[in-house]
Parts: sequence; structure tokens; C-alpha cells
Amino acid sequence: VSGFDWPVRVYYEDTDAGGVVYHAGYLRFFERGRTEWLRSLGFSQQRLGAEDGALFTVVSMSIEFRRPARLDDLLTVRTEVREMSGASVHFDQQLLRVDESGPLASAAVRVACIDAETFRPRRLPEPLRGRLG
Amino acid sequence: VSGFDWPVRVYYEDTDAGGVVYHAGYLRFFERGRTEWLRSLGFSQQRLGAEDGALFTVVSMSIEFRRPARLDDLLTVRTEVREMSGASVHFDQQLLRVDESGPLASAAVRVACIDAETFRPRRLPEPLRGRLG
Amino acid sequence: VSGFDWPVRVYYEDTDAGGVVYHAGYLRFFERGRTEWLRSLGFSQQRLGAEDGALFTVVSMSIEFRRPARLDDLLTVRTEVREMSGASVHFDQQLLRVDESGPLASAAVRVACIDAETFRPRRLPEPLRGRLG
Amino acid sequence: VSGFDWPVRVYYEDTDAGGVVYHAGYLRFFERGRTEWLRSLGFSQQRLGAEDGALFTVVSMSIEFRRPARLDDLLTVRTEVREMSGASVHFDQQLLRVDESGPLASAAVRVACIDAETFRPRRLPEPLRGRLG
Repeated sequence: VSGFDWPVRVYYEDTDAGGVVYHAGYLRFFERGRTEWLRSLGFSQQRLGAEDGALFTVVSMSIEFRRPARLDDLLTVRTEVREMSGASVHFDQQLLRVDESGPLASAAVRVACIDAETFRPRRLPEPLRGRLG
Repeated sequence: VSGFDWPVRVYYEDTDAGGVVYHAGYLRFFERGRTEWLRSLGFSQQRLGAEDGALFTVVSMSIEFRRPARLDDLLTVRTEVREMSGASVHFDQQLLRVDESGPLASAAVRVACIDAETFRPRRLPEPLRGRLG
Repeated sequence: VSGFDWPVRVYYEDTDAGGVVYHAGYLRFFERGRTEWLRSLGFSQQRLGAEDGALFTVVSMSIEFRRPARLDDLLTVRTEVREMSGASVHFDQQLLRVDESGPLASAAVRVACIDAETFRPRRLPEPLRGRLG
Repeated sequence: VSGFDWPVRVYYEDTDAGGVVYHAGYLRFFERGRTEWLRSLGFSQQRLGAEDGALFTVVSMSIEFRRPARLDDLLTVRTEVREMSGASVHFDQQLLRVDESGPLASAAVRVACIDAETFRPRRLPEPLRGRLG
């Protein structure tokens, strides 16, 4: 797998009184990108939770906000796996707009797999490891 | 009980590109008012869910948005019980700002008590009925 | 125009600790429906604000929450104009899921056109009136 | 100035279907901490924007999510200035809960001062520099 692009549209709900996207809103966009990638590979978080008892949780994140996104913008969230260990995945993500050469924002995100009951780290479900690897 | 006032401050997170509070944000303010009223009476929703298996869910809401709230505003959420039945409570709520004679927004909110497992309507926990009544 | 359907997907960002979509989240879904309808008719709110000085603001809303939407659900927002006056539009909206006969939620929403500078009511831009009428 | 503590309460609006605070919600808590610190020093962002033409924007952020916060939790946001340059401030922030020895989450946040019209970097307003320094 070499990456995954997902479109997001900016609505009023995403903006703030500065006239641009509120900074925490980028995290929601990045999560949609990761979630839709999983879905494109055949995995629903709802089902992974209910059937495998596997939840995903963001452990750490490093984000750079370079240029503001604005109301009505149509953006692309680009998601790549940088590294994978037994219980976690390290994603590189970018938020792109067609008229800009570089990303509006970029993020390095570490997501861990945890047990839905105990909230303790657990191994990624095997089929998912296979698809992301 | 004749009503309960709770202060809320407007942050960037609450505003939108129109420069004012995003309309859905008022629902969050109103819910904080209801929750803090319950808390002031000695009830935590966390504990009502875990110990009594009772969740609260908004069944219907009618809201009027009269004047915009803005960044940095300090507002008051006023909450009153208009009516109570076996399984639901009907609240009247207002969002007030000290320099305005009338409310910035007002809402009539019907909240039902449901079972945490089945999501079916159930009777309000007795101690809570006693305090709200 | 007889109505407009727009798909929305439920992400973690939309849910709450009750395991379902947070009630204020429905307002965001309904607004996406109205916004995308405008867009499908050729109108961007960004441009209406910048070029015509026309903003839209929700004046009142009446919502019924009937059945919960859940993580990963793919929903449809259905939007219809019930009535239009000089300065406002009254929408009827429904949130639908394919496995349900009735709507998960329905809303009657009154949106007013206001001047971007003065925030006072103003007539709907003529081309928009023509398209919605 | 050696730091500033601000209380935040966790409401349903802050949680997600995992039963804990949604990860982007921590950014809102951290921003409330920074904003209230400014306010405690006599600065309102509303006024800094309107009178000095100075907006603040998050340029980069590095966050670690260590332990989940939950519904009804009463938390403390601790904010310290690590470093200050002409046009930006580097904050260290922690989210604390009284029963935990370490922070639930910690963040290093770089905030830049920008011109409200041009969105270009500008020097921090002098009185603010004096108070934060």
C-alpha cells in the first residue's frame, strides 16, 4: 500500500472567528483520512471494536499548520504508513489544496491498538497488519 | 427547585467564520447548563449510567437564535424544569448576556431517560425525580 | 426544485460516550445538507459573503431525535424548501438511514439572510431566490 | 510569570464512542488554558484583534496522549511559557487530573502572532511581551 487520498470539504462548523479552519479541526480531517483508508481496505472500526475487541487510539501527534484552510475549500487528506510495529502504526499525513504546491498542514501520528475492555495495548488484528504492511 | 444559572465563556472553538458562535454550539452550552444543574443536586451522569443504568437523551428541541454571542463573551445558561413525566423532563433554557435585556437564545428541550443497555425509555431514577420535582 | 439528498458518514468526532451521535452533531449534518444544496445550484457561501455581502444565519430550529445514528453509519440528509419569504427560507430536513423506514431525525429550520457588515436582515440575493423558488 | 492553572470539566460534547475524551478535544482544552492565561494578565483576544490587529495562530504542536480523560472528570490545564521570540511564543502545557501522578496529556505548542488583515507574522504587542516575559 503506498498511500490513500480522501477529499474533505470545509463547512462553517470547521471554521472559527479568525475566518479560517479552527486548528483542532485538522485533527478531525486527519482522522477521517485514516478511517477511510481502513474502510477502503475492508475494515470498519465499529466492527473491529465489536468483533475483535480492538480499538484504535492516538498516542502522539506532531502537527505543523502552514497555511490556513478556508470556508468552502475542497481539500485532500493524504495518508501513508511510515512504520508499523506489533501494536501500533505510525502514519504520515498531509492536508492538500489543489492551488498550493505544499501541504496546508502535515502530521506525524502514532496510533496504538488497544483492547476494547481493558484499554491496554494489544497486537494489531492479523488481517489488518497484512493489508497495511 | 426554581432554576439554575451556569456561566459559560465563548472561546475560538465555539465561533465560526461568521465571527459569532456557531449555531450548534448553543446546544453544547445548553447541555452544560442541564448537566451542571444535575451535578449541583448531587447527580453525575457518569455514575447514573454506571450504577443505575440510566442515560439521558435529548428527544426534541425547539430553539430560537435571537442575537449572536461573540468571542470572549461571558454568558449565563439559565435552566428551569417546565414539566416532568415518568420518563422525561421538559426544560426551558435561556442563554443570557449581562448587557442584553432579553436572551440571546432560548430553547425548549425534552430529555428522556433511557436504559443504558437497551436504549429503551425507562422511569427516571427516584432520587432524581424527587430533587427535580 | 423538489429536494436534495446529501450523504454523510459518521466518524468518531461525531459520537459521544453514549455510543451514538452527539445531539448537536445532527445540526452540523443538516447544515451540510443545506450548504451542498446551495452549492449544487451554483452558490458558494464564501462567495455570497464576499461578493454580495450576504450571510445566512439560522433563526430558529425545531428538531426531533427519533433513533440514534452510530459510528460508521452512512446517512442521507434530505433537504426541502417548505416556504420562502423575502428575507428567509424555511427548510424541512430529514436524516435517513437505508435500513430504517422513518427518519432518524427531522428538523424544521428557518434561515435568514443578513447583511455581512450590519448583521441586519436583508433580501435574499435575486439569483438565489430564483433557483430555490 | 511561572505558569497558570485553569480548570476544565468534561461534558458529553467532549467524549466519543470509545467512552473517553475525543483526541481533538484536548486541543480545545489546551487553548482554553492559553486564552485564560492571557485574560488573567488583562488581555482579551477579541480586543487584541479589534484594537491591535493582532491575531494568534497555532503554528505547530506536539502532543502526547498518555491516559484517557472521561465524562464528568474535572481536569486542570497547566500552561507555561518555555520560550518567547519576537513574533511567537512557545508554550508547554499539561492536562492533569487530581488522582494521577503524571499528566493525562502534554503538549508543546508554538503560537505565532499574525496581522489580522494580511495574516503575516508580526511582532507581539509590546504590553503582552512584557507580561509573558
